[in-house]
Amino acid sequence: MHPFDAALALSPDREGQPGQFQGHTQAAWWNMVGPFGGISAAVMLQAVLRHPALHGTPVALTVNYTAAMNEGPYTIVATPVRTSRSTQHWTVQLCQSHGPEGAVVVLTATVMTALRRPGWGASDSPMPRVPAPQTLARATAPPGGLPWLQRYDLRTVTGGLEFLQVGHKPGAAVHGTSLSQIWIRDEPARSLDFAALAAQADIFFPRVWLRRGQTCAAGTVSYTVYFHVGTQALQNCADAWVLGQACGQGYGDGFFDQTGQLWSEHGQLLVTTHQLVYFKD
Amino acid sequence: MHPFDAALALSPDREGQPGQFQGHTQAAWWNMVGPFGGISAAVMLQAVLRHPALHGTPVALTVNYTAAMNEGPYTIVATPVRTSRSTQHWTVQLCQSHGPEGAVVVLTATVMTALRRPGWGASDSPMPRVPAPQTLARATAPPGGLPWLQRYDLRTVTGGLEFLQVGHKPGAAVHGTSLSQIWIRDEPARSLDFAALAAQADIFFPRVWLRRGQTCAAGTVSYTVYFHVGTQALQNCADAWVLGQACGQGYGDGFFDQTGQLWSEHGQLLVTTHQLVYFKD
Repeated sequence: MHPFDAALALSPDREGQPGQFQGHTQAAWWNMVGPFGGISAAVMLQAVLRHPALHGTPVALTVNYTAAMNEGPYTIVATPVRTSRSTQHWTVQLCQSHGPEGAVVVLTATVMTALRRPGWGASDSPMPRVPAPQTLARATAPPGGLPWLQRYDLRTVTGGLEFLQVGHKPGAAVHGTSLSQIWIRDEPARSLDFAALAAQADIFFPRVWLRRGQTCAAGTVSYTVYFHVGTQALQNCADAWVLGQACGQGYGDGFFDQTGQLWSEHGQLLVTTHQLVYFKD
Repeated sequence: MHPFDAALALSPDREGQPGQFQGHTQAAWWNMVGPFGGISAAVMLQAVLRHPALHGTPVALTVNYTAAMNEGPYTIVATPVRTSRSTQHWTVQLCQSHGPEGAVVVLTATVMTALRRPGWGASDSPMPRVPAPQTLARATAPPGGLPWLQRYDLRTVTGGLEFLQVGHKPGAAVHGTSLSQIWIRDEPARSLDFAALAAQADIFFPRVWLRRGQTCAAGTVSYTVYFHVGTQALQNCADAWVLGQACGQGYGDGFFDQTGQLWSEHGQLLVTTHQLVYFKD
């Protein structure tokens, strides 16, 4: 089984309500102090996609990281709070038993799904002109090699982790910008779907590292993905490369935000994404 | 009482749980087919700000517009799902009785509040150089004058509703872009606070109108605001002007998204904002 599908495996809880699932963290997706945030977001979306009452495909996903996720099992409950003819709104919660503390809410999410009607379209976010992924070297993981980074083939166009190299002075300006452009593909390759996009839109390392030229403790606290494509367009992408772009906006008093886009290899805007990140000075 | 404060008036429900409030829609804030979305977002935030267990100030707000809001009373329940030493995560729901349909969830939201520690800050979103608000004419409401538009003094720098003027061909290109820059102030003037920012970040008319040079039915379905300032910085703004900027990103099959920023009159980044909007072709 592909490691992404292994992480997304959810068992319906036969004694619980419809939309209640059991899952388990995966060592293959571990980040510094918990799972990669993108895989957690994908699992939250997956609970909606597996719900028997699902109506339509995802258009908006917001995940809040409310507590640390420990290694072990968890329970997700996805609830359709409102269904209309063409749209459906969901709330999702993931809980985990944290020993003496009891059940802790680790993630909350809201999801909107919709039956998209074919119609007029345009983009104010054209894909930037960048070298093809085949012409770029695969990014090497930083010292200590985090497991989740091995789950992606990443080819940096600009705004990579060069500043981690020996000889760079911490705090020295890196690019004068927090812009990164990175080609992304699941490793091994896997056909694109909504859950895969929900994870890939979170692959960017903290913008504050790039902005300050040094690493620090940082973690996403709120994460939003808007989906601009339907099932057919995603199927047409198959397992091709995705170009990701991310940039910081404002930084101050322990938080910064990031705005980003993912395009298909042929330049179609797939998702736009935003996140708020906690960082330690 | 200022019309903004009248809209934010919430009565604690003495028979309900802590964080349960009663409110009522306000004719002064009516838009096409319901209240202005920004006032609804502000009311959801206000329920958190009024909660006796509140910890910190808002850093992230996401509101989902799940059903039409009717004229009349409503109930909001704000729940702190996780509180740590320095952060707090909330879920919020607004319900309304819709006649024979019974209680309907009209809005869902997640809010994060935090005790911000003073520390390093920077901006990758400098305020654009634009003419001062005092040099620009006050925007006139479009024909039919929507009540909520009277609640703001808006001075358009670029990307206004000029295309609604007689003689413009529907569909003719307007700017070749969906960018708007608009000076914003409550009318009458009112000191800035978090709820005011939550409302002001939604004042931009649908980007699809500007992009296509024609109006259509459209409504926000998911709305996110990240707050980049604390209480002191907001108090320093007093009732000065705020510069708002918004731009579309992707449009297709009935939905588009918008990204935006609000700066203080002196150029401090106050909030960044994103929304997904439904539109009818």
